[in-house]
Amino acid sequence: MKAVVFKEIGKVAVEEVPKPDLNTPADAIVKVTAAAICRTDIKILHGWAYGDYKHKPGLIFGHEGVGVVEEVGGEVKKFRPGERVIISNNVQCGSCFYCLQGRYALCENGGWVLAHTENGTHAEYVRIPYADMGLHKIPEGLSDEDVMGVMDILSTGMFAVENAETKPGDIVAVIGAGGVGQCVIMLAKLFGASLVIAVDTVDHRLELAKKMGADVVINPKTEDPVGKIMAISDGRGADCAIEVVGVKETLEYALKSVRPCGHVSIIGIFAEPQTVPIDIIQLKSLTIRSGYVDTNRIPKILRLVQHGKINTRAIFTHTFPLVEAPKAYEIFDKGLDNVVKVILKP
Amino acid sequence: MKAVVFKEIGKVAVEEVPKPDLNTPADAIVKVTAAAICRTDIKILHGWAYGDYKHKPGLIFGHEGVGVVEEVGGEVKKFRPGERVIISNNVQCGSCFYCLQGRYALCENGGWVLAHTENGTHAEYVRIPYADMGLHKIPEGLSDEDVMGVMDILSTGMFAVENAETKPGDIVAVIGAGGVGQCVIMLAKLFGASLVIAVDTVDHRLELAKKMGADVVINPKTEDPVGKIMAISDGRGADCAIEVVGVKETLEYALKSVRPCGHVSIIGIFAEPQTVPIDIIQLKSLTIRSGYVDTNRIPKILRLVQHGKINTRAIFTHTFPLVEAPKAYEIFDKGLDNVVKVILKP
Amino acid sequence: MKAVVFKEIGKVAVEEVPKPDLNTPADAIVKVTAAAICRTDIKILHGWAYGDYKHKPGLIFGHEGVGVVEEVGGEVKKFRPGERVIISNNVQCGSCFYCLQGRYALCENGGWVLAHTENGTHAEYVRIPYADMGLHKIPEGLSDEDVMGVMDILSTGMFAVENAETKPGDIVAVIGAGGVGQCVIMLAKLFGASLVIAVDTVDHRLELAKKMGADVVINPKTEDPVGKIMAISDGRGADCAIEVVGVKETLEYALKSVRPCGHVSIIGIFAEPQTVPIDIIQLKSLTIRSGYVDTNRIPKILRLVQHGKINTRAIFTHTFPLVEAPKAYEIFDKGLDNVVKVILKP
Amino acid sequence: MKAVVFKEIGKVAVEEVPKPDLNTPADAIVKVTAAAICRTDIKILHGWAYGDYKHKPGLIFGHEGVGVVEEVGGEVKKFRPGERVIISNNVQCGSCFYCLQGRYALCENGGWVLAHTENGTHAEYVRIPYADMGLHKIPEGLSDEDVMGVMDILSTGMFAVENAETKPGDIVAVIGAGGVGQCVIMLAKLFGASLVIAVDTVDHRLELAKKMGADVVINPKTEDPVGKIMAISDGRGADCAIEVVGVKETLEYALKSVRPCGHVSIIGIFAEPQTVPIDIIQLKSLTIRSGYVDTNRIPKILRLVQHGKINTRAIFTHTFPLVEAPKAYEIFDKGLDNVVKVILKP
Repeated sequence: MKAVVFKEIGKVAVEEVPKPDLNTPADAIVKVTAAAICRTDIKILHGWAYGDYKHKPGLIFGHEGVGVVEEVGGEVKKFRPGERVIISNNVQCGSCFYCLQGRYALCENGGWVLAHTENGTHAEYVRIPYADMGLHKIPEGLSDEDVMGVMDILSTGMFAVENAETKPGDIVAVIGAGGVGQCVIMLAKLFGASLVIAVDTVDHRLELAKKMGADVVINPKTEDPVGKIMAISDGRGADCAIEVVGVKETLEYALKSVRPCGHVSIIGIFAEPQTVPIDIIQLKSLTIRSGYVDTNRIPKILRLVQHGKINTRAIFTHTFPLVEAPKAYEIFDKGLDNVVKVILKP
Repeated sequence: MKAVVFKEIGKVAVEEVPKPDLNTPADAIVKVTAAAICRTDIKILHGWAYGDYKHKPGLIFGHEGVGVVEEVGGEVKKFRPGERVIISNNVQCGSCFYCLQGRYALCENGGWVLAHTENGTHAEYVRIPYADMGLHKIPEGLSDEDVMGVMDILSTGMFAVENAETKPGDIVAVIGAGGVGQCVIMLAKLFGASLVIAVDTVDHRLELAKKMGADVVINPKTEDPVGKIMAISDGRGADCAIEVVGVKETLEYALKSVRPCGHVSIIGIFAEPQTVPIDIIQLKSLTIRSGYVDTNRIPKILRLVQHGKINTRAIFTHTFPLVEAPKAYEIFDKGLDNVVKVILKP
Repeated sequence: MKAVVFKEIGKVAVEEVPKPDLNTPADAIVKVTAAAICRTDIKILHGWAYGDYKHKPGLIFGHEGVGVVEEVGGEVKKFRPGERVIISNNVQCGSCFYCLQGRYALCENGGWVLAHTENGTHAEYVRIPYADMGLHKIPEGLSDEDVMGVMDILSTGMFAVENAETKPGDIVAVIGAGGVGQCVIMLAKLFGASLVIAVDTVDHRLELAKKMGADVVINPKTEDPVGKIMAISDGRGADCAIEVVGVKETLEYALKSVRPCGHVSIIGIFAEPQTVPIDIIQLKSLTIRSGYVDTNRIPKILRLVQHGKINTRAIFTHTFPLVEAPKAYEIFDKGLDNVVKVILKP
Repeated sequence: MKAVVFKEIGKVAVEEVPKPDLNTPADAIVKVTAAAICRTDIKILHGWAYGDYKHKPGLIFGHEGVGVVEEVGGEVKKFRPGERVIISNNVQCGSCFYCLQGRYALCENGGWVLAHTENGTHAEYVRIPYADMGLHKIPEGLSDEDVMGVMDILSTGMFAVENAETKPGDIVAVIGAGGVGQCVIMLAKLFGASLVIAVDTVDHRLELAKKMGADVVINPKTEDPVGKIMAISDGRGADCAIEVVGVKETLEYALKSVRPCGHVSIIGIFAEPQTVPIDIIQLKSLTIRSGYVDTNRIPKILRLVQHGKINTRAIFTHTFPLVEAPKAYEIFDKGLDNVVKVILKP
């Protein structure tokens, strides 16, 4: 089959590789019909390490995808070949210490597996361990594009919004308006925020942010985000500040624009080590939360998509055939052509 | 001054009565510019008792109102004559056992006072005890009509929605689409429900419910509400059922249409004693909550109104001068002329 | 094998029956080393129905037990023959709508199965469906008697205490001091109650309640429970009232002795239909919760037992060989010989 | 009157100063009967700044105290001269944005006032602003020594334990066993921890920690705290890590010994700027909380003291007459004579 392979730092290629087999009776093989590129794929491409873990050349990229069940192992009870499914970007066993708490990202038998320790979704076929936990049926009437945000950007967005303890009436500052940031904006509105404030340095993203529900947009190139957030929040600051970029400045915006007793949610992935000054947390009585997404919110998110309450189609600005993956990666990596998110179609 | 007075059971009149004075240095006198009739005023008119408490003839009706501060006692620090204010429908001291928990309806020095143990807002002037806690400044740019829902129907609606532990993605059944019900519908949507289902026997209310955010409306005269709610919730039932009427049938709809492990919020005020069968609560592992509204949500609600996230103007279908109160009461009581809520203007 | 069988209403017998086999690859067969009689077994014996479900003659009693794994199906990953285990009294699949929320009692593929729709633990062997979810290893150093409370009375007790939202500093009234009640008392203390008040009509149970952590005990035969609870709670009432009996009077004690804005947890199983008056819930702004226990708390409870924070050995007042089950049932049923809980040893 | 005065950095003296007067009608004057020295007093003495705020020479030390009401202003409703009271270490107005949420430390009209912007409790008399909110009656039968921990070390301890989201069954690591640390230990046990682990470099504190409820004590001089905590928590780490010292090493212990998805509560006050590495928060999906204590827990804590559930008398190891304050400060500052906490008696 064809797959998008990590060759070496900085180099991605489409290659012919063996189709995956069932490894255990709990596995399923899914024929991928659409997959999306994540900022994390780009970070892997540039040599980023997750903790101490370095990604190995030969790895197939991609942890976002939808498809059709091709084959299931003997222990798989919920799925049959031919069913259209969303692929969870966590692998979760469902019965370890962390899974029993819904903390799938920390699954003691899984966690981040796709395009990390095992091959990912940027391929014609992908193997999904613990398929009964890792797949979700696509409701009638929804296209691949309709649900393409569910497994990652919406899951991550909802994780970030919940980590900020966003409540109806809150003022929410969202620092960063990429694919996840757009979902955070849409979900902050869905959670009943009285004001959603989007901060980004790219104007076309701010335009999209307005469509997604931002009440106020701020481009730090032309306005001081902290000053403006203070001004529109009675001088106190935002109830919730959600950092979705992963650089020094955006972290500072979040810490400075959140009000005393507020909540800071950090979902951006930092290429450089960063630190949070304790005296700020202490003087402002803050709560800080971070983490990699737990995909236990997929059923709830699917319901919201199914009933038309959230819609991520405008975020997926580009679609390429899988064989053009190197070009797609370049456009996404460099932010060309007003790209936000890119779909690959095998 | 002119005031709307409870003469005897079934009889309301506009009379000339003395203007209220400051009783304590914590009081304020507010010149009422607009007040609304509540279903509770009608219940009082018809002789309903609150626990063992019978309302006394001569009482001035009304616990919903906005106005202008006329005079303040020496301990009032937050308000000055001339300021436009919303009147909380609870009187709260701010420092008793219940107030410290935000449970203002149970204030040991107040609670339900207006149009209950003391005179109410259906008058040219009203005395507000503990004015620093009981008044809220009207933000610039908002009219009386804009904020007319804040002190009661929105506060009660949010209390009911929170009592049902409504969370983003939930399916919420709202039984009853009067003034409070319309707010519950609007707020269930604001809280991120995936489906808001409105049930009422009056078609024009169901029409309004759709405008307020109901995804599905059911008139029990033509459809079985429980069956339909089951059908659109995967056969499990609604996550949250909110009863906003106060009769036997609507209570049954709520208990039967909520899913196992769901939440039932009862806000309707029952004229007849009603009971909840324990075996249903136990077999379905339910949580049941009820109560009279705590107005501690007013600042949050005001923020949402100010930023245009919620708007109750369409709910206030009728406005009358205060002197026409008997006619206004009759229209509201009998549900004439497609009335939902009525404003009186002194 | 020998087993304790429900012959007809009012009649229990020890009989020779076939040893159970694996039904599915997810099952395990456990050799029972100790089992306990539950009040529910007695209710079944006397013809009680669970909703509409009537128990069938021939059913083996018992949903509380510990033992040694005898045999496991091919999908069982966590357990091997020879391991000592606690048997969960719920059967839970681990991946349905309710299991994913930890609400195992409502498992769409299980729930209450043992001694209900399938044979129970009062036998030499028992089949456990979804064994990976339904069994828990017994930590080193703990005897059968040490963990005999974990699967039911402690799980139910913690469920009841959590349903009452018990928080450190609370005054907790526990109405009923049988096996579960004793655990509720011990756990209310563990949760940090400032006062635990036990109510029961049997003096030896009140004596045991004091040992388990009750600060105040009340026998309604000699004192008015509601009056006394009011007197020791500043006239407001208990923050949490937990009903653990299941008769009209105890329900009334709970509703009357809880303070406004307090929480009522109902865990007693009622033989007669009972109702909760809504006006009390509404005037006092109460939260009412009930349900059958979810056993998702077993790992946490085991930790507490292992570290010596809770100990139920004094609650298990009697032990009989399995063959003397009819006598054991009679003693437990009639409350003879100061019995609290009874262990059967096959 | 006599008072303990901050002369200059490093110098404390007892001096004759004017007795305070009522400033506003909401004030009370309290005759101090006992006061305690806090580690913060020592930090002020050594020139520590709170944010940008430098303490002024002439300031009277002390924010912990109990006494007898001497005089009240005209707006004070809850207290009369002659009543024995606990002094809250926050000044709270009760009606600002933060007070309405119980976040008294951030009170927009108060917060940290005593021994900070106004004179403190280490004197014969002290003025208490907003006395109705800032004083609490001492229940019958409790001595000054019984309640000496309530206003600060118990309040701070409970704030820290709640910030760590401590739940029954949790493993709680407490890093630091000074006065607040001892309370954290006692309260972690009260909250139902399955294991309380105390870490400190001073053996006599670890001895006291055992009496207060620590199950395991670790002296980093002889054992590796992180390794030992891992070993006794199934290799995962503590559910909650509470930092109560304020130096680099103790912060590291907390971050390294907490398990993934665990909670870190930071209550130690750092003399040097410290930072938290984000990648650790992110990889371990942590929640971090800090802040200065809100004293809204005093009523609940008083109840627990009154009913004998917590007792801090052993923590107050030393008592001196007020006139010997310089000696008392020195002993406390240098940790002489196995001191934990020191009481001054005017």
